[in-house]
Amino acid sequence: MDARIDDDGRVLTLTTGDATHRFHAIWLRDNAQDDETRAPGNGQRLISLRDIPADTRITDVSVDGRGVTVTFAPEGKDVLFDPGWLSRHAYGSGAGRPRGWIADDLTCWDAGLQDDVPVAPLDELETRGPALKDWIEQVAAYGFGKISGGPVAEGALFRVVDLFGYVRETNYGRLFEVRTEVNPTNLAFTGLGLQAHTDNPYRDPVPTIQVLYCLESSAAGGENMVVDGFAAALRLKDETPDFFDVLANHCARFEYAGEDGVCLTSRRPLIELAPDGELIGVRFNNRSLAAVTDVPFDRMETWYAAYRRLGEIIDDPAMEVTFRLEPGEAFIVDNTRVLHARKAYSGTGTRWLQGCYADKDGLRSLRDAMRRQSQEAAE
Amino acid sequence: MDARIDDDGRVLTLTTGDATHRFHAIWLRDNAQDDETRAPGNGQRLISLRDIPADTRITDVSVDGRGVTVTFAPEGKDVLFDPGWLSRHAYGSGAGRPRGWIADDLTCWDAGLQDDVPVAPLDELETRGPALKDWIEQVAAYGFGKISGGPVAEGALFRVVDLFGYVRETNYGRLFEVRTEVNPTNLAFTGLGLQAHTDNPYRDPVPTIQVLYCLESSAAGGENMVVDGFAAALRLKDETPDFFDVLANHCARFEYAGEDGVCLTSRRPLIELAPDGELIGVRFNNRSLAAVTDVPFDRMETWYAAYRRLGEIIDDPAMEVTFRLEPGEAFIVDNTRVLHARKAYSGTGTRWLQGCYADKDGLRSLRDAMRRQSQEAAE
Repeated sequence: MDARIDDDGRVLTLTTGDATHRFHAIWLRDNAQDDETRAPGNGQRLISLRDIPADTRITDVSVDGRGVTVTFAPEGKDVLFDPGWLSRHAYGSGAGRPRGWIADDLTCWDAGLQDDVPVAPLDELETRGPALKDWIEQVAAYGFGKISGGPVAEGALFRVVDLFGYVRETNYGRLFEVRTEVNPTNLAFTGLGLQAHTDNPYRDPVPTIQVLYCLESSAAGGENMVVDGFAAALRLKDETPDFFDVLANHCARFEYAGEDGVCLTSRRPLIELAPDGELIGVRFNNRSLAAVTDVPFDRMETWYAAYRRLGEIIDDPAMEVTFRLEPGEAFIVDNTRVLHARKAYSGTGTRWLQGCYADKDGLRSLRDAMRRQSQEAAE
Repeated sequence: MDARIDDDGRVLTLTTGDATHRFHAIWLRDNAQDDETRAPGNGQRLISLRDIPADTRITDVSVDGRGVTVTFAPEGKDVLFDPGWLSRHAYGSGAGRPRGWIADDLTCWDAGLQDDVPVAPLDELETRGPALKDWIEQVAAYGFGKISGGPVAEGALFRVVDLFGYVRETNYGRLFEVRTEVNPTNLAFTGLGLQAHTDNPYRDPVPTIQVLYCLESSAAGGENMVVDGFAAALRLKDETPDFFDVLANHCARFEYAGEDGVCLTSRRPLIELAPDGELIGVRFNNRSLAAVTDVPFDRMETWYAAYRRLGEIIDDPAMEVTFRLEPGEAFIVDNTRVLHARKAYSGTGTRWLQGCYADKDGLRSLRDAMRRQSQEAAE
């Protein structure tokens, strides 16, 4: 490895074989991993940027078997860097990614997933072994998964949440009953079919995970369907880039005020991008879309045409995975990405699901902690 | 009022006095408020856009004392619109708002708020009368408020959350103890001073509300401070627009992996904007900022200079409101906007707070429901 100080000590250039990485002095100093900069136990940074001189520069660098040692002025501080860590954290390579790029660890899908839906028995997942690791990896990748073999017991859905996180309680309660009600506060509590949708787009932040757990299922109809909203958004972009852009560039509005004392509103786009164009969220819910007032007049018809086409894509059977939940079965969706639907069902027989919300930070955290654990075990 | 059909029935133009508003046929039809389009009880839309013909146009319009009646083809459907509702939902007026605009119902603040901090006794708020309405309005506007006169009792902080919402449980528990620990998993659980920060930026979604409730306060030091992150971001923009842009245009990364089985990571900008430039979030936390790798090489030094300057603004006493919580007092912050800090405290005496997270959708919902209620009472 060759190490060179450039630009009067403002830049370190590291060359290993064909790979060249450049790091700024201020970035290196801020990311030092020594015990004075980072708390040894919990890894949190102990200093603020205000503790690092603004004119920080590199005065010396040396490479040996321990790693790359960098000397920073004016502190006169030596810091040892791990070359592997540096190459994994090299920056600036993301430039030029297309608008709508998705994270490497996500896999888009369509009806072809029908026979490969991630599914595992609840009690096996609860042993917290390889079955959980596999299932969590797949749920994170697809934004969707099933659970089988659970008890037919009220509240059993919380055992699903306990696998990875915590219930997000809302005005609907810690859990909500999905069955036909006489005076429904929400159309979900009727026998009507529901177009594929994400839940609670009128909430900000939306619940990022939904669990639906089946307790009774003897009614005709009522099948569940799921659609990958990221796949749908990217198909829209493929077909008509301007449709993707108009939905990403302007906020829609959502509202739910169906109960006394509740008036939930949000202002967010149907297709949400990070500042560098990463596709990070989809909202789609005809029932709670409020009057859209943040689209310029001369773009409103295009916005509606795009919204219509996105709906057609979502309704396309080629996009959907369909299944019928039996009592003791459940499914989980990433509610920022995967839409769910149900077919209408009739009054003969019963259909009873319990639902609850949770958040996906816990799911991703568990996945990454299990990855780290198996990596450490392998080392 | 004058009503005119334009563009072969694609546009309705309404003129009242000096005000002219234009609405597209498809927008009007989708936003019809009749009982076939919207469920009378809960207000949810009963139809999808797929139920509305793509070639919808207006064939007739008439104005009378009841409102504006519009006839849509090809459905042949008459819909009555309230002119007041239409003028409140006129669209396209937001064009040209500056990047970093903030919602009308927010009020930015600095140290000048010191003597006007929203504060109310807990038991008075719990009567759910005008005191709660005023306090909620102010907390929503300032992103911050205090509560006085609560009991010195563990778990009393949940009574604060019960005013407007629900606890967001995390790996830190339903509540967490903020006091000196021997082997802290988090630097918050030491006597160290903490620079003003937002909590848990490594979580996605972040908890949007934090409550900190004081149970013991005899240690020297440990005062709390809060800073309006929106005011800080807008000051940064005022001083150096490019600094605001570089922090808004590129994602930072945050990480917390201080406990077994926990590996929380996020990739979000320090300054978060809606697609139309609305300022909707600030993340700032030196302890959990991970290596930033999504900034192009030639912008990294600018990113660091901007991050440094934002920190200096946040540290400026002219921006901060300082107070000392006594036992039975609490404060609440909008964690997407308002940063909080604490001064270092010593080993003599004790300092014990309990903290928990919640979400601000409930707070905004309660505010809007109370507004609606007092409007209806006035009518």
